[in-house]
Amino acid sequence: MNKTLGIGLAGFGTVGTGVWETLERNFDLISNRTGVRTEMMRIAVRDINKSRPEGAPVEKFTTDWKDVVNDPTVDIVVELIGGTTTAFEIVEAALKARKPVVTGNKALLAERGKALFALSREMNTPIHFEAAVAGGIPIIKAVQDSFVGNRIETMAGIINGTSNYILERMTDAGLGYPEALKEAQELGYAEADPTLDVNGWDAAHKAILLATLSYGFSIDPAEVYVRGIEMVRGIDIEFAKRLGFVVKLLCVVREHENGTVEIRTQPSFIPQSHVLSSVNGVFNAVAINGDASGESLFYGRGAGKGPTASSVVADIVEAARGFAQEAGHRGFLPYQTEGQLVPIEDTETPYYVRFDVTDEPGVIAKIANILADAGIGISGTHSPVNADDPDADFVDMVFQLHTCKFGLLKDTLKEIEALNCVNSRPVVFRIENLG
Amino acid sequence: MNKTLGIGLAGFGTVGTGVWETLERNFDLISNRTGVRTEMMRIAVRDINKSRPEGAPVEKFTTDWKDVVNDPTVDIVVELIGGTTTAFEIVEAALKARKPVVTGNKALLAERGKALFALSREMNTPIHFEAAVAGGIPIIKAVQDSFVGNRIETMAGIINGTSNYILERMTDAGLGYPEALKEAQELGYAEADPTLDVNGWDAAHKAILLATLSYGFSIDPAEVYVRGIEMVRGIDIEFAKRLGFVVKLLCVVREHENGTVEIRTQPSFIPQSHVLSSVNGVFNAVAINGDASGESLFYGRGAGKGPTASSVVADIVEAARGFAQEAGHRGFLPYQTEGQLVPIEDTETPYYVRFDVTDEPGVIAKIANILADAGIGISGTHSPVNADDPDADFVDMVFQLHTCKFGLLKDTLKEIEALNCVNSRPVVFRIENLG
Repeated sequence: MNKTLGIGLAGFGTVGTGVWETLERNFDLISNRTGVRTEMMRIAVRDINKSRPEGAPVEKFTTDWKDVVNDPTVDIVVELIGGTTTAFEIVEAALKARKPVVTGNKALLAERGKALFALSREMNTPIHFEAAVAGGIPIIKAVQDSFVGNRIETMAGIINGTSNYILERMTDAGLGYPEALKEAQELGYAEADPTLDVNGWDAAHKAILLATLSYGFSIDPAEVYVRGIEMVRGIDIEFAKRLGFVVKLLCVVREHENGTVEIRTQPSFIPQSHVLSSVNGVFNAVAINGDASGESLFYGRGAGKGPTASSVVADIVEAARGFAQEAGHRGFLPYQTEGQLVPIEDTETPYYVRFDVTDEPGVIAKIANILADAGIGISGTHSPVNADDPDADFVDMVFQLHTCKFGLLKDTLKEIEALNCVNSRPVVFRIENLG
Repeated sequence: MNKTLGIGLAGFGTVGTGVWETLERNFDLISNRTGVRTEMMRIAVRDINKSRPEGAPVEKFTTDWKDVVNDPTVDIVVELIGGTTTAFEIVEAALKARKPVVTGNKALLAERGKALFALSREMNTPIHFEAAVAGGIPIIKAVQDSFVGNRIETMAGIINGTSNYILERMTDAGLGYPEALKEAQELGYAEADPTLDVNGWDAAHKAILLATLSYGFSIDPAEVYVRGIEMVRGIDIEFAKRLGFVVKLLCVVREHENGTVEIRTQPSFIPQSHVLSSVNGVFNAVAINGDASGESLFYGRGAGKGPTASSVVADIVEAARGFAQEAGHRGFLPYQTEGQLVPIEDTETPYYVRFDVTDEPGVIAKIANILADAGIGISGTHSPVNADDPDADFVDMVFQLHTCKFGLLKDTLKEIEALNCVNSRPVVFRIENLG
């Protein structure tokens, strides 16, 4: 693919800015990985005078979205303005111009998707909407492509971060609903008008999209059962806890044996033992049961600049690939002739080291001296581990060590191994900081 | 896409059988969703006389894999025989014949992928390998497509179910390593020869593939640091627990600031608070940190007939789409003109219901009678909830109810709401059985 594809963007708020930044920052990486090269051609904004991040391509700004869609250098239209009126016009105009659309607008597709998907078929022009559900979690692609061979038996999702944060604070800090909402607003996790988040409709829109993908027909939101979290009280959360449950705003989608589809969104009691119960804060998760795949779960950030931009960019690349002559080859190809591994000796973590030692005075001192000479810090010793056994001549001794290079540890352990009181090769476990 | 595409299968063991069954069972679904229609044309097996599941297409069997690859009706070659010698010849021959390849063979691609990917490029013919890493978890597509706009900062994976099961049993049941291994073998979770699982190499092969996808260069397995779980003892697991960790066989891949790549597989201490610590049994999980997406996690069945077949079928569909004339349109299109939702009144779960009642004798009896008349079972009552407050006239009373249709519950609650002693609308939470 040699042609550079032009991107037209409607909306330069948090997510739009994130998309622009990501495409700039990772241009070479994306182009190496996929052959796709993109250039931002035109950006529709509401207020052209608003202050923008440094380096923002203000010379491409316009206040008329038609300038974006009609620009002949724009091949792909990205709609990120939200709402269901102007956004509808933009997507409609783009499809009519046979320009593939990328959107993160769940309300638009849940409320007015029927007309837009029909137009998409008519014009043979795709709508991509990974960013519309669960921010940075690639759940749309998973359902649409990865589970394409599965009948989807059930899906259960925690897909509204605002509600999830509020419920978590009510659970862990014992806050009342109004206090938790206020805190979420102060932290930027809830909008000034949080209605769509707390009344369940934001989550329900996403569930409608997931169900539409799974079962293939358009769902009228008016037929969907939705309840929000406003009626949850501390006493319910207390009771849930006592009974072994956690209260979460849950979307459930399930196919019944006769082929009809159950879809609902409401605060639910879910078992503390289920992995969904540990999805906290602004994180999202969707559990999917397919008839072949069995149970699986996708977890990640459900909103925010970077995660949502990550999904928009993936869709832009997907749309761009549709322009390629060689669209036939969608497999992986190495894109660097060579790269360099970090020698294992140069990697570093803290460690847990177990020594098999002869139980005699001075053992710890000898080992500790060698470690000290090497400059390796000790964060704990446990010795001897099996001192309770009066017959043991050989005992296990455990050292926890501060972060150091593995090469240094290896050399130092060789020295320790040479001590008379050490009877076998030390056993090393890394202590992983998973962030 | 009107043409039916021919599939040639090498290997009809557990996974091969699962692929055939899934394609048969969900043929209409897949074809409706994607337009892709496939037909199994030829299957290479080692032993033609071995007993097979009922209905198996034995008339398509051959013992010579060349019959599969060379069959002019075979468009896509699926390699599921394992190993790195004959499997290599099959994939090589298929690519040379310009037939897209689907494989689940992690050892083949980790050990000999360099030559095969070069051939893939030369012949402009893709290799798809979702099934090679983490069975039914679509982690290959996630890294290759969904996170294509991200620099992958770190990946951490539990991607060998056998080791994970053994470590879990050592942790939870206090089994020694030999006993836990024996149990895993008896349950079919470990092979008679478990070497590649317990020595870490099965996981390392998968990590090599994930790193190759993320950073784009071929990695020589000889340069990769791998340690297995054979040296883990009960005492280490005890210590880990006491210090707030869990022992897991962990693969770590990380890009350093200078662009070099850290890759290693070993038993590690990971914090009990991290979500990876709760990945138990034969489940797999991979955590990914992208520079835009932030933290995400993919969890599911890492092996087995259905899950692995699910990934192979997804790849077959992906390969088939490469043949389509209209490859340009890869967006979602509704594939049923209409479908039917389950009326919310017909959905059923157990329930938690909170009533605001006047604290007077007989309240429970009145409510319980109405529930009994409706045939709704009570699994628990808690009443009154705030009896400690001597000033309360109105108190909360909680009923847990057995599974019934929501419509019945609604009607019954209306009757209860009409009681004089009930002061507001009852609040209902569903108790979700998440399986």
